[in-house]
Amino acid sequence: MFASPPAPQKAPRPVSSTSDIENLIELMAKLPGLGPRSARRAVLHLIRKRALLLTPLADSLQIVAETARECLNCGNVGTTEICDICQSEKRATGELCVVEDVADLWAMERASVFRGRYHVLGGTLSALDSIGPEQLRIPRLLNRVASEQITEVILALNATIDGQTTAHYIADQLNGRVRLTSLAQGVPIGGELDYLDDGTITAALNARKEI
Amino acid sequence: MFASPPAPQKAPRPVSSTSDIENLIELMAKLPGLGPRSARRAVLHLIRKRALLLTPLADSLQIVAETARECLNCGNVGTTEICDICQSEKRATGELCVVEDVADLWAMERASVFRGRYHVLGGTLSALDSIGPEQLRIPRLLNRVASEQITEVILALNATIDGQTTAHYIADQLNGRVRLTSLAQGVPIGGELDYLDDGTITAALNARKEI
Repeated sequence: MFASPPAPQKAPRPVSSTSDIENLIELMAKLPGLGPRSARRAVLHLIRKRALLLTPLADSLQIVAETARECLNCGNVGTTEICDICQSEKRATGELCVVEDVADLWAMERASVFRGRYHVLGGTLSALDSIGPEQLRIPRLLNRVASEQITEVILALNATIDGQTTAHYIADQLNGRVRLTSLAQGVPIGGELDYLDDGTITAALNARKEI
Repeated sequence: MFASPPAPQKAPRPVSSTSDIENLIELMAKLPGLGPRSARRAVLHLIRKRALLLTPLADSLQIVAETARECLNCGNVGTTEICDICQSEKRATGELCVVEDVADLWAMERASVFRGRYHVLGGTLSALDSIGPEQLRIPRLLNRVASEQITEVILALNATIDGQTTAHYIADQLNGRVRLTSLAQGVPIGGELDYLDDGTITAALNARKEI
């Protein structure tokens, strides 16, 4: 018989140590866009602006850690089971905009031109990373198109190879069941031809319009 | 007579709103090195890595918000009245390294070549911003040199105009009371002459050494 091992005792946090600050720097350095040097700079900035920034940021992170969740309907990030956009009466048009990622949804919202609702796939199809339709929210999309009063699906996927592959797959699945559109391709506003890639110029020329 | 206005009632935090997340993005965007776009990216990253990053970061910020403080002796940032370096028996040499900022102290510590103690000025003299010796930790420095067993003061101020002005002022004040040195100036390790400014090349040539 073995004696049961003593329960691990939680060591009291040492009162006199700078390791709390080093720990914070290490965590901050894991954020995208920050490295070890900028994390140190950010932490010093935070400590200098304790009341204005450090405490509010700590509180805000705590709140978001407790409340943030994915919308069960569309995959948007919010603080409720069904997100504000899905809940909104004003957005209940038959238009559904399909995006890869929550960041893309936010980008569309900043343009504040689209008044319908969204569907966030959570990525793109990728044979290399063995991401199939089941790993994304594609079954749920087909489901929504069948059960909600959807009249048009706008594919707003990124103009990358993976994005376009995914768009083709979805278009195949929905073919004939609903009106399908995608974002126009062409010269971006403020863009200079000299700096554009050949693909964009080709797309813009092919989609040229009467003035 | 006026009736006293009704006491403002603290509104309960709305349960269903994405404004918590927007609030967090706004706070993150105030960090040096992050703008609105990278703050959004960072917040999405945090929400995706809730257990690994978001909760630990919230806890760590809370701890630092409660415990971080300036060392009463040298101005370093730590979690105790007197910082680890000032307390350490191993560092009790007579050498005192004067730096502008806590970030500079950390940079010196990363090189782990200096075994004495520090004095953080908290900035540089600047007539334009009306920062005189009293606004920095210069009186405290003179005090320390007089009362502690200091044998050498190493001026490790930045090689900027403000930094060198401050170094000259301190050198004037301490003249004759202690050995005064400053960091060597020259070609940085790995530096290519072609990319160096004239001032650095001049300094390196003037301080040239026998091989």
